[in-house]
Amino acid sequence: MTTASSPTPSELLESARRDHAALVERGLSLNLTRGKPSSRQLDLSADLLELPRGRYTAADGTDCRNYAGAPQGLLELREIFAGLLQVPVEQLIAAGNASLELMHDSLANAFLGTVPGGTGRWADAERIAFLCPVPGYDRHFALCERFGIEMIPVPMTDEGPDMDVVERLVSADADIKGIWCVPKYSNPDGVSYSDEVVRRLAAMPTAAPDFRIFWDNAYAVHHLTDEEVEIADVLAACAESGNPDRVLVFGSTSKVTFAGAGVAFLGSSPANVSWFQGLAGKRTIGPDKINQLRHAMFLGDAEGVRAHMRRHRELLEPKFETVERVLTKALGGTGLATWSTPKGGYFVRLDVLDGCAREVVRRAAEAGIALTPAGATHPYGDDPRDRTIRIAPSFPELDALEEAIEGLAVCVRLVGAEKLVAEQG
Amino acid sequence: MTTASSPTPSELLESARRDHAALVERGLSLNLTRGKPSSRQLDLSADLLELPRGRYTAADGTDCRNYAGAPQGLLELREIFAGLLQVPVEQLIAAGNASLELMHDSLANAFLGTVPGGTGRWADAERIAFLCPVPGYDRHFALCERFGIEMIPVPMTDEGPDMDVVERLVSADADIKGIWCVPKYSNPDGVSYSDEVVRRLAAMPTAAPDFRIFWDNAYAVHHLTDEEVEIADVLAACAESGNPDRVLVFGSTSKVTFAGAGVAFLGSSPANVSWFQGLAGKRTIGPDKINQLRHAMFLGDAEGVRAHMRRHRELLEPKFETVERVLTKALGGTGLATWSTPKGGYFVRLDVLDGCAREVVRRAAEAGIALTPAGATHPYGDDPRDRTIRIAPSFPELDALEEAIEGLAVCVRLVGAEKLVAEQG
Repeated sequence: MTTASSPTPSELLESARRDHAALVERGLSLNLTRGKPSSRQLDLSADLLELPRGRYTAADGTDCRNYAGAPQGLLELREIFAGLLQVPVEQLIAAGNASLELMHDSLANAFLGTVPGGTGRWADAERIAFLCPVPGYDRHFALCERFGIEMIPVPMTDEGPDMDVVERLVSADADIKGIWCVPKYSNPDGVSYSDEVVRRLAAMPTAAPDFRIFWDNAYAVHHLTDEEVEIADVLAACAESGNPDRVLVFGSTSKVTFAGAGVAFLGSSPANVSWFQGLAGKRTIGPDKINQLRHAMFLGDAEGVRAHMRRHRELLEPKFETVERVLTKALGGTGLATWSTPKGGYFVRLDVLDGCAREVVRRAAEAGIALTPAGATHPYGDDPRDRTIRIAPSFPELDALEEAIEGLAVCVRLVGAEKLVAEQG
Repeated sequence: MTTASSPTPSELLESARRDHAALVERGLSLNLTRGKPSSRQLDLSADLLELPRGRYTAADGTDCRNYAGAPQGLLELREIFAGLLQVPVEQLIAAGNASLELMHDSLANAFLGTVPGGTGRWADAERIAFLCPVPGYDRHFALCERFGIEMIPVPMTDEGPDMDVVERLVSADADIKGIWCVPKYSNPDGVSYSDEVVRRLAAMPTAAPDFRIFWDNAYAVHHLTDEEVEIADVLAACAESGNPDRVLVFGSTSKVTFAGAGVAFLGSSPANVSWFQGLAGKRTIGPDKINQLRHAMFLGDAEGVRAHMRRHRELLEPKFETVERVLTKALGGTGLATWSTPKGGYFVRLDVLDGCAREVVRRAAEAGIALTPAGATHPYGDDPRDRTIRIAPSFPELDALEEAIEGLAVCVRLVGAEKLVAEQG
């Protein structure tokens, strides 16, 4: 069936081996592992390093240097992000420098107390399970492992998690207490949840009365195209469905201002916010209000955030275009890989032939190209088809990125051809 | 037996009633409740509001704006505080803006995991108890209540907790998993632990294999006299006694730089530090390194901290002298009260006649003087003798403080005289 112009698998393998040897020869040192902003992106917030320039009072007169005041976070900062995160300002908490902390503490509080609507401490349950749409975010999975939460994978579709599967599982199993969601520009697919998926998540019957959606809206304002995707308001949808306490909304400025020194947010129902704040009030007298003041001064308002994110896009869009261009040129039409073309967020999902992802990552490492470990996108590091690789193009400069993706493509060709040849043999 | 020059209890009561009525008449609004730094103390760190002035790299080259690097906190900041907190720098963690968070998380981690030397999760134990030297710090007690930890009061002496009581209790009861200690200028006594108390805490046999000393060294460098009290090195003492994992040392810059925007520290054995960091690494990618850089730049070195604290002392010492002077003038020789004269820290302990503390606080509130609720210095808010009142003189300006203490003394005279008259009748 092979036409004269199509190389045989053996020919493919031969040329891929030559290319890989040459690649190793070059002794590269490139890193595509984590979704870190680049230095030039961080430079966009350089003024934060000069703020608050002697000012220390919040709009309500609170002395941000001292203990008291604003335990829920500075109102002027919450006002900026309330609309962007689709949370009423009085239901939005502004806290420390990482939304991961707020997810962790929400779990810890559920394990050591009783969440609104719950019947007891999760720590006392025989078994606690969470649904994990796959591929997903490895730090969510690490939190589950840390708390001994069983992870149940659920397939992703182009519109979010497969809701038929989700509904079937949560209606039958009261041990399933939650689901991880990255609802916009998901990590690593770049999928944004459809209105219908949001509606079904909000309305579905759950066997657990204290079921929680962990809504990690990490890329709420992180657009890469003019489309600027909007998702449905999950908090409102839950309230309208009679499940007001179902969802915890998380967000942060980690990829808006500084990844290590930003501000994180938690939004939810009045009951959940009051529950969380009651416990947070035992843990701390309050968040770093000076850093919140700094952020409010720097960003100004929601339009200020949008304008700032357009400057991020100017730096990020060429990188995602480079990934798309290089992958298309090197792998398009080969049948050896498919990949996502996200409209926002920080990642490209690359799927290689079944059983090849680990080997591709290993071959890339041989050539000095560090990738997120294969399997990291799945609970327990176990990608049953061993095919998904997460590409994080944000951090390297453009020329290094191009080199890295070209090298990665060589590894995909090599491992793919090896598989095809082995199957022939 | 009353001499001509000594007023009778009835005469005392009469004059105190007149003074209290006049006090109420004045309509004061004064607050002695919390150990907050004053605005002038916060002004000492005004330069922090200008830093890091465009700089963002740590000494080791870490870009403090980004995610990666220094998960245990910036080395240059840990180097400044290692000696001051008596913790080897490699065993010191620099984290967020509140040491209370680190105490909370140490407890949460013990409840949800197994501490080094432990046999299981504290969450699975029928009963967990902590020793609470009294009087003590209400936020420690609130943490115990939050986690359902039973609090067992232990009397304080002039040298620290009564070690005969402590040793008897911990050797007999394996449910006693810890003790709260504020070892220097304790809250609210101002007591500093003697070397012998530290040695006995480190060496005592405990029925619980995972017993922990929560060593809240909140006032490590907060001197009010030239004596600059030193306490024994508890971490070294524990290691020397064969109990290296027994103690968790906490400290912060809350009362060095900004109460709301400082840096907190946790120091312990290598095993405990690695246990804590392993779990913290699931919760966050790292602390706010920019704020740590800011602090390292501002404080410079340990001598910089000491010099800075001498400027705090210049502002605080006159306030503590005012408390001493006014109380001596109004209550000296009356037998109605005794009080501490601390060499450091943030509080004065005022003991009134048994059964009078709540009523004194109520009478002061009538006159517009807000005091920490009586009982707050004891677990469950229960001071069995109802006699201890905590005075926090740091926040008010001098003239307001003088007015407040004068008013407080009137209330002590009033309630004391009421008691004496009632006892006579």
